[in-house]
Amino acid sequence: MYDKITIKDIIKAGQDVYKFLKPTPLRHYQILSDMLETDVWLKHENHNPTCAFKVRGGIHLMSTLTEEQKSHGVYTASTGNHGQSIAFSAREFGVKANVFVPKGANPGKVESMRAFGANVEFYGDDFDQARAGALQAAQKNKGMFIGPTDDVLIKGVGTYGLEIMNDLPDVDVIIVPVGAGSGVCGTAIVAKSINPKIKIIGVQSTQAPAQQLSWKNSKLIEAENRTIAEGVATGVPFMNTQEIMWELVDDFVLVDDEEIISANKILIEITHNLIEEASAATFAAALKLKSALKGKKVVLVMSGGNISMKNLSSLFSGV
Amino acid sequence: MYDKITIKDIIKAGQDVYKFLKPTPLRHYQILSDMLETDVWLKHENHNPTCAFKVRGGIHLMSTLTEEQKSHGVYTASTGNHGQSIAFSAREFGVKANVFVPKGANPGKVESMRAFGANVEFYGDDFDQARAGALQAAQKNKGMFIGPTDDVLIKGVGTYGLEIMNDLPDVDVIIVPVGAGSGVCGTAIVAKSINPKIKIIGVQSTQAPAQQLSWKNSKLIEAENRTIAEGVATGVPFMNTQEIMWELVDDFVLVDDEEIISANKILIEITHNLIEEASAATFAAALKLKSALKGKKVVLVMSGGNISMKNLSSLFSGV
Repeated sequence: MYDKITIKDIIKAGQDVYKFLKPTPLRHYQILSDMLETDVWLKHENHNPTCAFKVRGGIHLMSTLTEEQKSHGVYTASTGNHGQSIAFSAREFGVKANVFVPKGANPGKVESMRAFGANVEFYGDDFDQARAGALQAAQKNKGMFIGPTDDVLIKGVGTYGLEIMNDLPDVDVIIVPVGAGSGVCGTAIVAKSINPKIKIIGVQSTQAPAQQLSWKNSKLIEAENRTIAEGVATGVPFMNTQEIMWELVDDFVLVDDEEIISANKILIEITHNLIEEASAATFAAALKLKSALKGKKVVLVMSGGNISMKNLSSLFSGV
Repeated sequence: MYDKITIKDIIKAGQDVYKFLKPTPLRHYQILSDMLETDVWLKHENHNPTCAFKVRGGIHLMSTLTEEQKSHGVYTASTGNHGQSIAFSAREFGVKANVFVPKGANPGKVESMRAFGANVEFYGDDFDQARAGALQAAQKNKGMFIGPTDDVLIKGVGTYGLEIMNDLPDVDVIIVPVGAGSGVCGTAIVAKSINPKIKIIGVQSTQAPAQQLSWKNSKLIEAENRTIAEGVATGVPFMNTQEIMWELVDDFVLVDDEEIISANKILIEITHNLIEEASAATFAAALKLKSALKGKKVVLVMSGGNISMKNLSSLFSGV
């Protein structure tokens, strides 16, 4: 069995994480439960200070840095939530964060990174080019480069899995959106360690299925990446998270962008929380799996709330 | 000095409230602080399970009921957050809640009350008629009638004031939206008991100024009530909350609906939280008071997040 990262590592990460963050709510929603004809809880990672789960990993990572490492700053590339996580966490530790974003990145997220004190560099036309820029700058300045799936990040984000198990010990199914994969991996490590019968289901968009294809075929497969759901928009899979998923993820569902949009509208209306598309993909997946979920206790991970105002507007236009 | 409700009552209410609810976050926002040229924190009462502060009062109220009272059910009238609070709290205590709403009430809020298990009765054309219906039904069925400003509710909602003082002991100014007045009264009792120098500022809409006029003139004055901000839409003031406000509220600002709408758009975009109009009124007020707030530590109470999807849509149309 997979044992490179264990539940003990995640519990230990919690000792850092809870110095800066509070557990997020796990809430039961009757209207969603009625729609799915089962009992549904949402894990509100959108209640984190960056409105996304990734900040747990950022905080844990910063806690592991030496004073020497801190003094040179950190470098990363991101189109969204990861960059905000690193910016926020670095500020808490007095570390300079340099976030490389592709030209045309979501302006709201860029503004938020800057508000957390990060130096934001526009570099290249897509994530891969921005990533190359960050790596180069890190080497030049002796700074630390942070990849989106570094093991230390998985350990930190796994703490929301501990909270789910604490609040709902008899959960049957946890559905998690898969971007780079740190969230689903942390959750799976925790849940399977406590009860191997808990089903872990990953979700991606049909319009960006690289992680799902790689999981299904047990090898890394790149794929088109044109989903509107930023948080699950991964065209190039990652080996370290795939290795965990191959062993610990029970199913991996694809949902169309159209289904995501329709699910997102319902979630925002029912919960009165801002929910981003990647998170809504879990509810779209649950609707698709409705008959299989009947009678089960189901948790949907609301990974974040950073929907763009443009997309929010188009969700509710004509209401 | 006012002493009918004391900070001790509120601390004691906390012993009930925290059995069911968790403290909500108080968050500093750099972008909002830059706009106001001071330091601004938002108290995220929208993170409560009903997405509004009132649930604290509902929980405390239910905790005080005898088994006899519980068995007859509770009756109240509401157009919104108060009804959801009573519905949620009653369910937690196994009590039947009967909520009377005027015809044409916000369908999202009605659906939410029903999802919390309440019996919702459409009665009359406005709040006052619905209230009469609830009172009559309570008497007929020997149930308890709950008014929106009952002292027991003020004690419960005051617990968010305790949290503000705990998280930011050197706060200078707290700006609170005033609907029926329980929020501002609970906050003022707590803050003034700990440090009388803390300024408590109430806010209402120019389009519904009854509470502000009553505060200003030290007597109950009714006024027009046509604001879009449901949470501060009070046309008839309440004596028990006015008595507290006369003594403990330092200033009471009116802002136009147009200013509220513009403030709301900024808050949702910057915080990625759904924020309702009444809460946005506090930010509109802060913008108005900008020069007076300079250099101060300012808390804006985000009383709730229950904006209608129709209003949300029109906020961001054309973005």
